[in-house]
Amino acid sequence: MRVEFLFDFGSPNAWFAHRVIPAIEKRTGVPFDYVPVLLGGIFKLTNNRPPMVAFGGIRNKMDYEMLEIRRFIARHNLGQFKFNPHFPVNTLTIMRMAVAALRGGFLPAYAEAMFRAMWEDGRKMDDAEVIRATLDAAGLPADDLLTAAQAPEIKQALMNATEEAVNRGAFGIPTFFVENEIFFGKDRLRDVEEEILTRKSAA
Amino acid sequence: MRVEFLFDFGSPNAWFAHRVIPAIEKRTGVPFDYVPVLLGGIFKLTNNRPPMVAFGGIRNKMDYEMLEIRRFIARHNLGQFKFNPHFPVNTLTIMRMAVAALRGGFLPAYAEAMFRAMWEDGRKMDDAEVIRATLDAAGLPADDLLTAAQAPEIKQALMNATEEAVNRGAFGIPTFFVENEIFFGKDRLRDVEEEILTRKSAA
Repeated sequence: MRVEFLFDFGSPNAWFAHRVIPAIEKRTGVPFDYVPVLLGGIFKLTNNRPPMVAFGGIRNKMDYEMLEIRRFIARHNLGQFKFNPHFPVNTLTIMRMAVAALRGGFLPAYAEAMFRAMWEDGRKMDDAEVIRATLDAAGLPADDLLTAAQAPEIKQALMNATEEAVNRGAFGIPTFFVENEIFFGKDRLRDVEEEILTRKSAA
Repeated sequence: MRVEFLFDFGSPNAWFAHRVIPAIEKRTGVPFDYVPVLLGGIFKLTNNRPPMVAFGGIRNKMDYEMLEIRRFIARHNLGQFKFNPHFPVNTLTIMRMAVAALRGGFLPAYAEAMFRAMWEDGRKMDDAEVIRATLDAAGLPADDLLTAAQAPEIKQALMNATEEAVNRGAFGIPTFFVENEIFFGKDRLRDVEEEILTRKSAA
């Protein structure tokens, strides 16, 4: 059974999912495949906008979204969350490097380092020197990754993955697929887990 | 413990909640208080819009909303749902009558008749003759209710309830309060139930 997590490091809700996924993997015995996509590209292709823009003019709506974030943090003990002071951070380079890390077989370690830098340590991850320092500290090959981020085939692969995500029904991040069943949002993780367990018991 | 369900018959998601609430009341032993409010008034006061308007221009988004409705229907065995062919139906009159029914002590029977007419029988519930026929068939006092719907104090009470809802944080329907904890959307009913049970066990 293939379970996919479509992510962009720029989404705080992707970080929330990233921190909750290990427990779901443990309970279900099914690993999640991390699929790098570009949230800005999804928004452009679907005419969608970030929640803060879309909901900013609606009274009470963002307050409620923030309340649900606090509830999610409390439920899953995610007190280490820190909203990135440089938000919005342009994640184009670190998402291209995610494609290279996936090809190199070390996406898990890379994703962990980037998610932590973005949503726990508050680093400015669209600054090349900050990226390099973060990679160095994590023992990841900074030179290789920064070079790969400039390679046309890596750039194209990220664009292709983003377009494919939209063609499969995505309109935001985090998006999950359990085989071809789509789920949107960190609040659907319970449904994702139920879908995995239902399919396992039916198999 | 007070648990409130803020509703407007014009919202299909309120109907979904209405059909799921009895099972939650049974499992928790706590009844829900139905609170009539005007969805159009909430939208006006908060600058919010119906999902179909807000999401209509976003590729994939409404398809996903529809998918989640199908999943909800399957999960809760709500195959009797039928999208109202007259949508959008102006619910001003039947919501004013809901206030009168609440005061008269027969809101449960009234709400059941109206929700069924709107989202199972596809009736045009902004037509006075259709309203009268529906009330007659349900054994409810049509003349009294149609008269009450014109009473200034009933009109004002519905406006007041709508304003109070917004002042407490509402921006759409269905909205739930467990004491002062707000929850929005039919997909939060699991959280509503958990909140009730947590408070019961802490009491």
